[in-house]
Amino acid sequence: MSENRNISRDIVLPEPTVRRLPWYLAYVSMIRARGVEYVSSTAISKEIGVDASQIAKDLSFLNIRGKTRIGYEVVSLERELNDFLGFSRVHNAVMIGVGSLGAALIADSGLERYGLNIVAGFDINADLVGSKLCGVPIYHIDDLSERCERYDAEIGIIAVPVENAQEVADRLVAAGVKGLWNFTPARIRTWEGIVIQNTSIYAHLAVMYNRLDDSQNGGRR
Amino acid sequence: MSENRNISRDIVLPEPTVRRLPWYLAYVSMIRARGVEYVSSTAISKEIGVDASQIAKDLSFLNIRGKTRIGYEVVSLERELNDFLGFSRVHNAVMIGVGSLGAALIADSGLERYGLNIVAGFDINADLVGSKLCGVPIYHIDDLSERCERYDAEIGIIAVPVENAQEVADRLVAAGVKGLWNFTPARIRTWEGIVIQNTSIYAHLAVMYNRLDDSQNGGRR
Repeated sequence: MSENRNISRDIVLPEPTVRRLPWYLAYVSMIRARGVEYVSSTAISKEIGVDASQIAKDLSFLNIRGKTRIGYEVVSLERELNDFLGFSRVHNAVMIGVGSLGAALIADSGLERYGLNIVAGFDINADLVGSKLCGVPIYHIDDLSERCERYDAEIGIIAVPVENAQEVADRLVAAGVKGLWNFTPARIRTWEGIVIQNTSIYAHLAVMYNRLDDSQNGGRR
Repeated sequence: MSENRNISRDIVLPEPTVRRLPWYLAYVSMIRARGVEYVSSTAISKEIGVDASQIAKDLSFLNIRGKTRIGYEVVSLERELNDFLGFSRVHNAVMIGVGSLGAALIADSGLERYGLNIVAGFDINADLVGSKLCGVPIYHIDDLSERCERYDAEIGIIAVPVENAQEVADRLVAAGVKGLWNFTPARIRTWEGIVIQNTSIYAHLAVMYNRLDDSQNGGRR
Protein backbone atom coordinates (compact mmCIF):
# COMPACT_ATOMS: atom_id res chain seq x y z
CA MET A 1 0.00 0.00 0.00
CA SER A 2 2.76 2.43 0.82
CA GLU A 3 6.18 2.85 -0.74
CA ASN A 4 9.26 4.47 0.75
CA ARG A 5 7.69 4.20 4.14
CA ASN A 6 10.11 1.65 5.48
CA ILE A 7 12.28 4.10 7.31
CA SER A 8 10.19 4.46 10.40
CA ARG A 9 9.42 0.77 10.66
CA ASP A 10 13.10 -0.07 11.04
CA ILE A 11 13.06 1.64 14.40
CA VAL A 12 12.62 -0.68 17.32
CA LEU A 13 10.50 1.20 19.78
CA PRO A 14 10.25 0.49 23.47
CA GLU A 15 7.56 -2.15 23.94
CA PRO A 16 5.31 0.13 26.03
CA THR A 17 5.19 2.59 23.12
CA VAL A 18 4.34 -0.16 20.62
CA ARG A 19 1.59 -1.36 22.94
CA ARG A 20 0.11 2.12 23.27
CA LEU A 21 0.08 2.90 19.53
CA PRO A 22 -2.81 0.46 18.80
CA TRP A 23 -4.89 2.31 21.42
CA TYR A 24 -4.34 5.56 19.54
CA LEU A 25 -5.13 3.81 16.27
CA ALA A 26 -8.40 2.42 17.64
CA TYR A 27 -9.46 5.87 18.78
CA VAL A 28 -8.33 7.64 15.62
CA SER A 29 -10.15 5.10 13.41
CA MET A 30 -13.28 5.68 15.42
CA ILE A 31 -13.26 9.47 15.08
CA ARG A 32 -12.26 9.22 11.39
CA ALA A 33 -15.40 7.13 10.83
CA ARG A 34 -17.35 9.93 12.51
CA GLY A 35 -15.87 12.47 10.10
CA VAL A 36 -13.56 14.26 12.54
CA GLU A 37 -10.75 15.99 10.61
CA TYR A 38 -8.17 16.98 13.22
CA VAL A 39 -7.29 15.69 16.66
CA SER A 40 -4.85 16.94 19.29
CA SER A 41 -2.81 14.83 21.69
CA THR A 42 -4.81 16.48 24.48
CA ALA A 43 -8.08 15.25 22.97
CA ILE A 44 -6.67 11.72 22.55
CA SER A 45 -5.40 11.88 26.12
CA LYS A 46 -8.88 12.57 27.49
CA GLU A 47 -10.29 9.47 25.81
CA ILE A 48 -7.38 7.10 26.30
CA GLY A 49 -6.20 8.00 29.78
CA VAL A 50 -2.56 8.41 28.73
CA ASP A 51 -0.71 11.66 29.46
CA ALA A 52 -0.82 14.07 26.46
CA SER A 53 2.95 14.62 26.54
CA GLN A 54 3.47 10.83 26.43
CA ILE A 55 1.16 10.62 23.40
CA ALA A 56 3.03 13.42 21.62
CA LYS A 57 6.31 11.63 22.38
CA ASP A 58 4.99 8.26 21.12
CA LEU A 59 3.64 9.86 17.92
CA SER A 60 6.94 11.65 17.31
CA PHE A 61 8.32 8.31 16.04
CA LEU A 62 5.88 8.51 13.11
CA ASN A 63 6.28 10.39 9.83
CA ILE A 64 3.69 12.91 10.88
CA ARG A 65 3.67 16.26 12.61
CA GLY A 66 0.78 17.85 14.38
CA LYS A 67 -0.06 21.50 13.69
CA THR A 68 -0.04 23.96 16.56
CA ARG A 69 -3.50 24.50 18.02
CA ILE A 70 -5.08 22.19 15.38
CA GLY A 71 -3.40 18.88 16.03
CA TYR A 72 -2.94 15.90 13.73
CA GLU A 73 -4.84 15.34 10.52
CA VAL A 74 -6.97 12.29 11.41
CA VAL A 75 -6.85 10.48 8.05
CA SER A 76 -3.05 10.82 7.82
CA LEU A 77 -2.56 9.82 11.44
CA GLU A 78 -4.63 6.67 10.98
CA ARG A 79 -2.67 5.73 7.84
CA GLU A 80 0.69 6.40 9.48
CA LEU A 81 -0.24 4.35 12.55
CA ASN A 82 -1.42 1.45 10.38
CA ASP A 83 1.76 1.57 8.31
CA PHE A 84 4.04 2.00 11.27
CA LEU A 85 2.48 -0.88 13.20
CA GLY A 86 2.84 -3.12 10.15
CA PHE A 87 -0.92 -3.60 9.84
CA SER A 88 -1.04 -2.45 6.21
CA ARG A 89 1.60 -4.96 5.10
CA VAL A 90 0.74 -8.67 4.64
CA HIS A 91 2.62 -11.08 6.93
CA ASN A 92 2.29 -14.76 5.99
CA ALA A 93 1.79 -17.07 8.93
CA VAL A 94 1.23 -20.76 9.60
CA MET A 95 -0.92 -22.09 12.45
CA ILE A 96 0.45 -25.09 14.33
CA GLY A 97 -2.30 -26.92 16.17
CA VAL A 98 -5.82 -26.67 14.79
CA GLY A 99 -7.59 -27.66 17.99
CA SER A 100 -10.05 -25.34 19.67
CA LEU A 101 -7.80 -22.30 20.04
CA GLY A 102 -5.97 -22.71 16.71
CA ALA A 103 -9.23 -23.17 14.82
CA ALA A 104 -10.67 -20.17 16.66
CA LEU A 105 -7.75 -17.98 15.60
CA ILE A 106 -8.05 -19.12 11.98
CA ALA A 107 -11.74 -18.18 12.13
CA ASP A 108 -10.98 -14.72 13.52
CA SER A 109 -11.05 -12.46 10.50
CA GLY A 110 -9.81 -9.62 12.70
CA LEU A 111 -6.27 -10.93 12.40
CA GLU A 112 -6.41 -10.53 8.62
CA ARG A 113 -7.49 -6.91 9.01
CA TYR A 114 -4.28 -6.39 11.00
CA GLY A 115 -2.05 -7.81 8.28
CA LEU A 116 -1.82 -11.43 9.41
CA ASN A 117 -2.40 -13.83 6.52
CA ILE A 118 -2.74 -17.39 7.83
CA VAL A 119 -1.79 -19.44 4.78
CA ALA A 120 -1.89 -22.96 6.24
CA GLY A 121 -2.64 -24.94 9.37
CA PHE A 122 -0.81 -28.01 10.66
CA ASP A 123 -1.92 -30.78 12.95
CA ILE A 124 -1.38 -34.49 13.66
CA ASN A 125 -5.09 -35.28 13.86
CA ALA A 126 -5.93 -37.46 10.83
CA ASP A 127 -9.50 -36.12 10.84
CA LEU A 128 -8.22 -32.61 10.22
CA VAL A 129 -5.29 -33.23 7.87
CA GLY A 130 -6.40 -32.75 4.28
CA SER A 131 -9.42 -30.62 5.21
CA LYS A 132 -9.91 -26.87 4.96
CA LEU A 133 -10.94 -24.43 7.69
CA CYS A 134 -12.33 -21.07 6.53
CA GLY A 135 -10.49 -21.70 3.28
CA VAL A 136 -7.17 -22.46 5.01
CA PRO A 137 -5.72 -25.88 4.08
CA ILE A 138 -4.68 -28.16 6.96
CA TYR A 139 -1.55 -30.28 6.48
CA HIS A 140 0.26 -32.88 8.56
CA ILE A 141 2.96 -31.41 10.77
CA ASP A 142 5.56 -33.51 8.93
CA ASP A 143 4.97 -31.36 5.83
CA LEU A 144 5.80 -28.19 7.76
CA SER A 145 9.24 -27.49 6.35
CA GLU A 146 8.26 -27.95 2.72
CA ARG A 147 5.05 -25.90 3.04
CA CYS A 148 6.65 -23.06 5.00
CA GLU A 149 9.14 -22.56 2.20
CA ARG A 150 6.49 -22.74 -0.51
CA TYR A 151 4.23 -20.26 1.30
CA ASP A 152 7.12 -18.00 2.34
CA ALA A 153 5.79 -18.05 5.90
CA GLU A 154 7.32 -15.43 8.18
CA ILE A 155 5.41 -16.19 11.40
CA GLY A 156 4.53 -19.44 13.15
CA ILE A 157 1.58 -19.42 15.54
CA ILE A 158 1.85 -22.04 18.27
CA ALA A 159 -1.49 -23.33 19.55
CA VAL A 160 -0.57 -26.92 20.44
CA PRO A 161 -0.76 -28.64 23.84
CA VAL A 162 1.80 -27.05 26.15
CA GLU A 163 4.03 -30.15 26.25
CA ASN A 164 4.61 -29.93 22.48
CA ALA A 165 5.29 -26.18 22.33
CA GLN A 166 9.10 -26.32 22.45
CA GLU A 167 9.34 -29.09 19.83
CA VAL A 168 7.00 -27.20 17.50
CA ALA A 169 9.04 -24.02 17.98
CA ASP A 170 12.21 -25.93 17.02
CA ARG A 171 10.54 -27.28 13.89
CA LEU A 172 9.24 -23.84 12.89
CA VAL A 173 12.67 -22.25 13.21
CA ALA A 174 14.20 -25.14 11.24
CA ALA A 175 11.57 -24.44 8.56
CA GLY A 176 12.79 -20.84 8.26
CA VAL A 177 10.15 -18.99 10.26
CA LYS A 178 11.45 -15.77 11.86
CA GLY A 179 8.70 -14.97 14.36
CA LEU A 180 6.97 -17.24 16.87
CA TRP A 181 3.61 -16.26 18.35
CA ASN A 182 3.18 -18.54 21.33
CA PHE A 183 -0.35 -19.00 22.68
CA THR A 184 0.63 -21.78 25.12
CA PRO A 185 1.72 -21.11 28.70
CA ALA A 186 5.05 -22.82 27.87
CA ARG A 187 8.27 -20.85 28.19
CA ILE A 188 9.90 -21.32 24.80
CA ARG A 189 13.67 -21.00 24.62
CA THR A 190 14.73 -18.34 22.14
CA TRP A 191 17.36 -18.33 19.44
CA GLU A 192 19.41 -15.39 18.23
CA GLY A 193 17.45 -13.41 15.65
CA ILE A 194 14.14 -15.17 16.29
CA VAL A 195 11.32 -13.00 17.62
CA ILE A 196 9.00 -14.54 20.23
CA GLN A 197 5.72 -13.03 21.34
CA ASN A 198 3.88 -14.76 24.18
CA THR A 199 0.10 -14.37 24.43
CA SER A 200 -1.08 -16.63 27.19
CA ILE A 201 -4.73 -15.69 27.50
CA TYR A 202 -5.13 -18.16 30.37
CA ALA A 203 -2.54 -16.23 32.38
CA HIS A 204 -4.67 -13.11 31.90
CA LEU A 205 -7.61 -15.10 33.21
CA ALA A 206 -5.62 -16.00 36.34
CA VAL A 207 -4.79 -12.34 36.95
CA MET A 208 -8.47 -11.44 36.66
CA TYR A 209 -9.62 -14.27 38.97
CA ASN A 210 -7.07 -13.22 41.57
CA ARG A 211 -8.22 -9.60 41.55
CA LEU A 212 -11.91 -10.58 41.48
CA ASP A 213 -11.56 -12.83 44.52
CA ASP A 214 -9.82 -10.04 46.32
CA SER A 215 -12.36 -7.33 45.44
CA GLN A 216 -15.20 -9.64 46.53
CA ASN A 217 -13.52 -10.31 49.84
CA GLY A 218 -12.91 -6.63 50.46
CA GLY A 219 -9.17 -6.95 50.04
CA ARG A 220 -8.87 -9.08 53.18
CA ARG A 221 -5.50 -10.70 53.63
CA MET B 1 -13.53 -29.22 44.40
CA SER B 2 -11.69 -27.91 47.44
CA GLU B 3 -13.04 -26.61 50.71
CA ASN B 4 -11.34 -24.35 53.22
CA ARG B 5 -8.87 -23.36 50.60
CA ASN B 6 -10.02 -19.81 50.24
CA ILE B 7 -7.40 -18.31 52.47
CA SER B 8 -4.61 -18.13 49.95
CA ARG B 9 -6.85 -16.88 47.14
CA ASP B 10 -7.72 -13.78 49.10
CA ILE B 11 -4.15 -12.60 48.72
CA VAL B 12 -3.60 -10.21 45.86
CA LEU B 13 -0.23 -11.08 44.45
CA PRO B 14 1.93 -8.78 42.39
CA GLU B 15 0.85 -9.22 38.77
CA PRO B 16 4.26 -10.57 37.65
CA THR B 17 3.90 -13.41 40.16
CA VAL B 18 0.37 -14.22 39.00
CA ARG B 19 1.64 -14.24 35.42
CA ARG B 20 4.48 -16.62 36.25
CA LEU B 21 2.36 -19.13 38.18
CA PRO B 22 0.64 -20.46 35.01
CA TRP B 23 4.10 -21.20 33.57
CA TYR B 24 4.90 -23.35 36.58
CA LEU B 25 1.48 -24.99 36.34
CA ALA B 26 2.04 -25.83 32.67
CA TYR B 27 5.39 -27.43 33.43
CA VAL B 28 4.17 -29.26 36.54
CA SER B 29 1.13 -30.67 34.68
CA MET B 30 3.46 -31.92 31.98
CA ILE B 31 5.80 -33.78 34.34
CA ARG B 32 2.83 -35.09 36.37
CA ALA B 33 1.52 -36.65 33.16
CA ARG B 34 4.94 -38.27 32.75
CA GLY B 35 4.73 -39.75 36.23
CA VAL B 36 7.33 -37.55 37.93
CA GLU B 37 6.70 -37.50 41.71
CA TYR B 38 8.85 -34.66 43.04
CA VAL B 39 10.27 -31.49 41.54
CA SER B 40 12.60 -28.83 42.94
CA SER B 41 12.54 -25.12 42.19
CA THR B 42 15.98 -25.62 40.59
CA ALA B 43 14.56 -28.20 38.17
CA ILE B 44 11.63 -25.92 37.29
CA SER B 45 14.08 -23.06 36.84
CA LYS B 46 16.07 -24.97 34.21
CA GLU B 47 12.97 -25.54 32.09
CA ILE B 48 11.23 -22.20 32.58
CA GLY B 49 14.13 -19.78 32.56
CA VAL B 50 13.10 -18.06 35.80
CA ASP B 51 15.55 -17.82 38.69
CA ALA B 52 15.11 -20.67 41.20
CA SER B 53 14.96 -18.28 44.16
CA GLN B 54 12.19 -16.32 42.40
CA ILE B 55 10.25 -19.56 41.86
CA ALA B 56 10.62 -20.53 45.53
CA LYS B 57 9.42 -17.06 46.50
CA ASP B 58 6.42 -17.21 44.13
CA LEU B 59 5.45 -20.67 45.38
CA SER B 60 5.73 -19.55 49.01
CA PHE B 61 2.32 -17.86 48.55
CA LEU B 62 0.75 -21.32 48.13
CA ASN B 63 -0.36 -23.76 50.85
CA ILE B 64 2.53 -26.07 50.04
CA ARG B 65 6.06 -26.51 51.28
CA GLY B 66 8.90 -28.19 49.41
CA LYS B 67 11.02 -30.77 51.22
CA THR B 68 14.74 -30.18 51.49
CA ARG B 69 16.68 -32.00 48.78
CA ILE B 70 13.47 -33.57 47.38
CA GLY B 71 11.39 -30.57 46.40
CA TYR B 72 7.63 -30.27 45.92
CA GLU B 73 5.26 -33.19 45.54
CA VAL B 74 4.15 -32.80 41.90
CA VAL B 75 0.50 -33.86 42.30
CA SER B 76 -0.02 -31.53 45.28
CA LEU B 77 1.78 -28.66 43.58
CA GLU B 78 -0.38 -28.98 40.47
CA ARG B 79 -3.56 -29.02 42.59
CA GLU B 80 -2.46 -26.06 44.70
CA LEU B 81 -1.54 -24.03 41.61
CA ASN B 82 -4.90 -24.80 39.97
CA ASP B 83 -6.78 -23.86 43.14
CA PHE B 84 -4.72 -20.78 43.80
CA LEU B 85 -5.09 -19.47 40.25
CA GLY B 86 -8.86 -19.99 40.44
CA PHE B 87 -8.81 -22.55 37.61
CA SER B 88 -10.60 -25.23 39.66
CA ARG B 89 -13.51 -22.94 40.53
CA VAL B 90 -16.26 -22.19 37.96
CA HIS B 91 -16.59 -18.50 36.97
CA ASN B 92 -19.73 -17.66 34.99
CA ALA B 93 -19.14 -15.30 32.11
CA VAL B 94 -21.11 -13.68 29.31
CA MET B 95 -19.68 -12.92 25.87
CA ILE B 96 -20.60 -9.59 24.33
CA GLY B 97 -20.13 -9.62 20.59
CA VAL B 98 -20.39 -12.93 18.79
CA GLY B 99 -18.52 -11.88 15.67
CA SER B 100 -15.36 -13.64 14.59
CA LEU B 101 -13.34 -13.20 17.81
CA GLY B 102 -16.27 -13.67 20.19
CA ALA B 103 -17.42 -16.81 18.39
CA ALA B 104 -13.84 -18.06 18.36
CA LEU B 105 -13.53 -17.62 22.12
CA ILE B 106 -16.83 -19.41 22.72
CA ALA B 107 -15.50 -22.27 20.60
CA ASP B 108 -12.25 -22.46 22.56
CA SER B 109 -12.83 -25.25 25.04
CA GLY B 110 -9.51 -24.36 26.67
CA LEU B 111 -11.20 -21.53 28.55
CA GLU B 112 -13.57 -23.98 30.19
CA ARG B 113 -10.66 -26.09 31.37
CA TYR B 114 -9.38 -22.97 33.16
CA GLY B 115 -12.65 -22.39 35.00
CA LEU B 116 -14.37 -19.98 32.61
CA ASN B 117 -17.97 -20.99 31.99
CA ILE B 118 -19.43 -18.91 29.16
CA VAL B 119 -23.16 -19.12 29.89
CA ALA B 120 -24.51 -16.81 27.18
CA GLY B 121 -23.55 -14.64 24.23
CA PHE B 122 -25.03 -11.27 23.24
CA ASP B 123 -25.12 -9.50 19.90
CA ILE B 124 -27.25 -7.09 17.89
CA ASN B 125 -27.09 -9.17 14.70
CA ALA B 126 -30.61 -10.54 14.07
CA ASP B 127 -29.12 -13.58 12.30
CA LEU B 128 -27.33 -14.60 15.50
CA VAL B 129 -29.88 -13.67 18.17
CA GLY B 130 -31.92 -16.75 19.12
CA SER B 131 -29.33 -19.20 17.83
CA LYS B 132 -26.84 -21.34 19.75
CA LEU B 133 -23.09 -21.55 19.34
CA CYS B 134 -21.38 -24.64 20.76
CA GLY B 135 -24.41 -24.98 23.01
CA VAL B 136 -24.21 -21.36 24.21
CA PRO B 137 -27.46 -19.39 23.65
CA ILE B 138 -27.15 -16.02 21.91
CA TYR B 139 -29.44 -13.21 23.08
CA HIS B 140 -30.03 -9.62 22.03
CA ILE B 141 -27.87 -7.13 23.89
CA ASP B 142 -31.03 -5.47 25.24
CA ASP B 143 -31.65 -8.62 27.34
CA LEU B 144 -28.24 -8.32 28.98
CA SER B 145 -29.30 -7.06 32.38
CA GLU B 146 -32.05 -9.62 32.89
CA ARG B 147 -29.91 -12.55 31.68
CA CYS B 148 -26.83 -11.58 33.68
CA GLU B 149 -28.86 -11.69 36.84
CA ARG B 150 -30.49 -14.99 35.97
CA TYR B 151 -27.15 -16.61 35.08
CA ASP B 152 -25.31 -15.01 38.01
CA ALA B 153 -22.60 -13.86 35.61
CA GLU B 154 -19.42 -12.65 37.28
CA ILE B 155 -17.37 -11.77 34.19
CA GLY B 156 -18.21 -9.95 30.97
CA ILE B 157 -16.04 -10.61 27.93
CA ILE B 158 -15.95 -7.70 25.50
CA ALA B 159 -15.40 -8.69 21.87
CA VAL B 160 -17.37 -5.98 20.08
CA PRO B 161 -16.11 -3.38 17.58
CA VAL B 162 -13.79 -1.00 19.38
CA GLU B 163 -16.18 1.96 19.12
CA ASN B 164 -18.80 0.09 21.17
CA ALA B 165 -16.44 -1.15 23.89
CA GLN B 166 -17.06 1.59 26.45
CA GLU B 167 -20.83 1.47 26.07
CA VAL B 168 -20.83 -2.33 26.46
CA ALA B 169 -18.63 -2.03 29.55
CA ASP B 170 -21.11 0.42 31.08
CA ARG B 171 -24.01 -1.92 30.39
CA LEU B 172 -22.15 -4.90 31.86
CA VAL B 173 -21.37 -3.06 35.06
CA ALA B 174 -24.98 -1.87 35.29
CA ALA B 175 -26.00 -5.52 34.92
CA GLY B 176 -23.93 -6.43 37.98
CA VAL B 177 -20.82 -7.94 36.36
CA LYS B 178 -17.68 -7.54 38.52
CA GLY B 179 -14.93 -8.35 36.01
CA LEU B 180 -14.43 -7.09 32.46
CA TRP B 181 -12.19 -8.98 30.05
CA ASN B 182 -11.59 -6.54 27.22
CA PHE B 183 -10.39 -8.01 23.91
CA THR B 184 -10.71 -4.71 22.03
CA PRO B 185 -7.89 -2.17 21.73
CA ALA B 186 -10.16 0.40 23.43
CA ARG B 187 -9.09 1.92 26.73
CA ILE B 188 -12.06 1.31 28.96
CA ARG B 189 -12.59 3.64 31.91
CA THR B 190 -12.70 1.78 35.18
CA TRP B 191 -15.01 2.03 38.16
CA GLU B 192 -14.14 1.48 41.79
CA GLY B 193 -14.30 -2.23 42.58
CA ILE B 194 -14.54 -3.40 38.96
CA VAL B 195 -11.67 -5.53 37.68
CA ILE B 196 -10.51 -4.94 34.11
CA GLN B 197 -8.17 -7.23 32.22
CA ASN B 198 -7.06 -6.09 28.76
CA THR B 199 -6.02 -8.70 26.21
CA SER B 200 -5.43 -6.93 22.95
CA ILE B 201 -4.00 -9.67 20.78
CA TYR B 202 -3.59 -7.19 17.91
CA ALA B 203 -1.25 -5.10 20.06
CA HIS B 204 0.89 -8.22 20.55
CA LEU B 205 0.90 -8.60 16.78
CA ALA B 206 2.19 -5.02 16.41
CA VAL B 207 5.02 -5.71 18.87
CA MET B 208 6.01 -8.80 16.90
CA TYR B 209 5.87 -7.02 13.51
CA ASN B 210 8.04 -4.22 14.87
CA ARG B 211 10.69 -6.60 16.16
CA LEU B 212 10.53 -8.75 13.01
CA ASP B 213 11.08 -5.78 10.71
CA ASP B 214 14.02 -4.76 12.84
CA SER B 215 15.65 -8.20 12.96
CA GLN B 216 15.30 -8.50 9.19
CA ASN B 217 16.95 -5.14 8.67
CA GLY B 218 19.78 -5.98 11.02
CA GLY B 219 18.64 -3.54 13.64
CA ARG B 220 19.38 -0.58 11.36
CA ARG B 221 18.05 2.74 12.51
